[in-house]
Amino acid sequence: VSDADATWVSGAEGSGFGRANLPYGVVAPEGAAPRCAVRIGTHALDLDALQRAGLLELPDGVFAGPALNPFLALGREAWTRTRRRLDALLAPDAPERAAVEPALVPLARAPARLPVAVGDYVDFYASLEHATNLGRRFRPGAPPLLPNWRHLPVGYHGRAGSLVVSGTPVRRPRGQRPPAVPGGPPTFGPTQQLDVELELGFLAGPGSPLGAPIPAAAAAEHVFGVVLVNDWSARDLQRWEYQPLGPFLGKSFATSISAWVVPLAALEPHLVAGPRQDPEPLPYLRAEGRWALDLELQVELDGELMSTTNARGLYWTFPQLLAHATVNGAATRPGDLFATGTISGSAPGTEGSLIERYAGGRFLADGETAVLRGRAGGDARPLVSLGEVAGTIVRSA
Amino acid sequence: VSDADATWVSGAEGSGFGRANLPYGVVAPEGAAPRCAVRIGTHALDLDALQRAGLLELPDGVFAGPALNPFLALGREAWTRTRRRLDALLAPDAPERAAVEPALVPLARAPARLPVAVGDYVDFYASLEHATNLGRRFRPGAPPLLPNWRHLPVGYHGRAGSLVVSGTPVRRPRGQRPPAVPGGPPTFGPTQQLDVELELGFLAGPGSPLGAPIPAAAAAEHVFGVVLVNDWSARDLQRWEYQPLGPFLGKSFATSISAWVVPLAALEPHLVAGPRQDPEPLPYLRAEGRWALDLELQVELDGELMSTTNARGLYWTFPQLLAHATVNGAATRPGDLFATGTISGSAPGTEGSLIERYAGGRFLADGETAVLRGRAGGDARPLVSLGEVAGTIVRSA
Repeated sequence: VSDADATWVSGAEGSGFGRANLPYGVVAPEGAAPRCAVRIGTHALDLDALQRAGLLELPDGVFAGPALNPFLALGREAWTRTRRRLDALLAPDAPERAAVEPALVPLARAPARLPVAVGDYVDFYASLEHATNLGRRFRPGAPPLLPNWRHLPVGYHGRAGSLVVSGTPVRRPRGQRPPAVPGGPPTFGPTQQLDVELELGFLAGPGSPLGAPIPAAAAAEHVFGVVLVNDWSARDLQRWEYQPLGPFLGKSFATSISAWVVPLAALEPHLVAGPRQDPEPLPYLRAEGRWALDLELQVELDGELMSTTNARGLYWTFPQLLAHATVNGAATRPGDLFATGTISGSAPGTEGSLIERYAGGRFLADGETAVLRGRAGGDARPLVSLGEVAGTIVRSA
Repeated sequence: VSDADATWVSGAEGSGFGRANLPYGVVAPEGAAPRCAVRIGTHALDLDALQRAGLLELPDGVFAGPALNPFLALGREAWTRTRRRLDALLAPDAPERAAVEPALVPLARAPARLPVAVGDYVDFYASLEHATNLGRRFRPGAPPLLPNWRHLPVGYHGRAGSLVVSGTPVRRPRGQRPPAVPGGPPTFGPTQQLDVELELGFLAGPGSPLGAPIPAAAAAEHVFGVVLVNDWSARDLQRWEYQPLGPFLGKSFATSISAWVVPLAALEPHLVAGPRQDPEPLPYLRAEGRWALDLELQVELDGELMSTTNARGLYWTFPQLLAHATVNGAATRPGDLFATGTISGSAPGTEGSLIERYAGGRFLADGETAVLRGRAGGDARPLVSLGEVAGTIVRSA
């Protein structure tokens, strides 16, 4: 616990949601329309109320809507200025305390909504350990890593319309499952292999036009913040459908994200060097500096710890993900989501999915709850929490 | 030419944009904000102006914005009522002619914009001939159709943020191209295999909630209309990247759609039986009735005809595409786009892409213009035109 985390809001310091974090989200306070907020301890600070009270200098109504997109569109200078202002307003000796206090709402009375309207959702496959584990399982007898894997961050588009906020129940999807015998017909019914995928997601802003690739060196300017992502997966559906065009219904039934977007600025003290890359990537994928995130991540099933891993082990870093996704001239829009793919380590107990952890012998049951958690610091540096992304499985209709 | 196509708007009857068509779009008249319109002949009929004049009974402002989404959200009853009303207003003897006439703007003074804000863009692989041609080329020596192909419409998500309207120039994308020697490093630069894909796209409305699959029998209630789609493809980028997660940068640089959305109602006389399906699809993919579209389609390169084909040959029909995409509970939103994938026939000159037509020996050059066209009727039935989707290749930056 350090001074940087201290605040007049009681109970917040040291909780992971102290002044060193200040993550953004959207809440729907009782009897009011959804609006943007910052989390401090167990409270939401209503940013629209703050702005109407004249305490923030930003375009009118930027926080009045049900999504952070207008704020994400403003870009780094506005993000930095707003973060500094909120930091000052919440400091222990803030002279504005009396004016700010009425804008605090207990989280229990202001349920969180999906924080952004995601335009496009890209999911990568950035963990070498996960790609190796899955390759062994989906293509037994063949080399687990395909020839392209070490040259580019393999990725695909997910379904933006299936993104839900932490806490939303997840209905077990039905679909076609692989034939019982090779060459036979598929079977149809509820997935028998429902899984989690532990991931980080990067929310883009202010956007970049069609035809203008984002250089790896500039990628951090295009990332507002970070969420936890659970890319729920139906492995049987996925195995049957995924060739040759990739995952579709095996993933598109639901993707959950955490409610509070941790600004990249709050994670700067936790940027570290990533793993050595061999072969050296092409020039457009090179970014000077430290871009891996030293974030401890956990998967919990019905309250029991399944895995603990760390995001710093990811082979591809987020500047590389953005540079690759746009090298062909693809545009980005404020609120686009770029997720890492499952984050797994190499030791037992560090896997980011059940299929890896239990070698295909255990999947999610109806009624079971999966919770992903993430945190940085908590040592000499203040604890910065990514909160959680939780979901309970509901049986097929 | 029949009475159903006749109208007091001069030159429209028999043009493919007569009273039998009435496709919807968005135009930006000189000095005015973009608004919704219906095309009649070479004019746009300003629907927001019509509504403000009290000539349409719909929620306030539904046509005032820069996208058709609010209208798509209203659903079939409102679509039918509005179509009937427009049909009456444009009939040869319409008593309202004098009130309607001021809302007509020549297309030359009202450039068309992207007609919808697409939430999710799904692209299928519904042509047996195309899947066979591509399978032979991408996996030589193996069976061209993978085991799942005849059991489900294979699909994937494309990049919604890269959708552009007909006429938008397409910049040749850069990216990683396959190694010159197996096991060697990829090369980097502008694609050397830029291609078109001739497709149809179905625009969804009024939307369906998460967890509620759309039955095949109800799918037509969830389709507002049809556009032409050119899913531009960089074959070298695609070949290197696509395993195991499917096409990504090889497609995500641009997808062009036609400006005018032809209502499904205008195509009802052109619904025919599709090809016989063997094996019989699973029950959730069965839809009684005729759901193939008897639409003649063409690909033109720099003014020369490359291919002519017909959409009626597609193996999977649009009710099957929607039923499959939602069987796992995925939601749909007004404006979601479901495209068929490349439409190819089996005879030479019926291919929907250059890689099929020219066996990999010819691709698009800088400065070259590709135009896709579509039309139905023109015999005893009135001609209904899907217009065109055009794009000229601009060299890499």
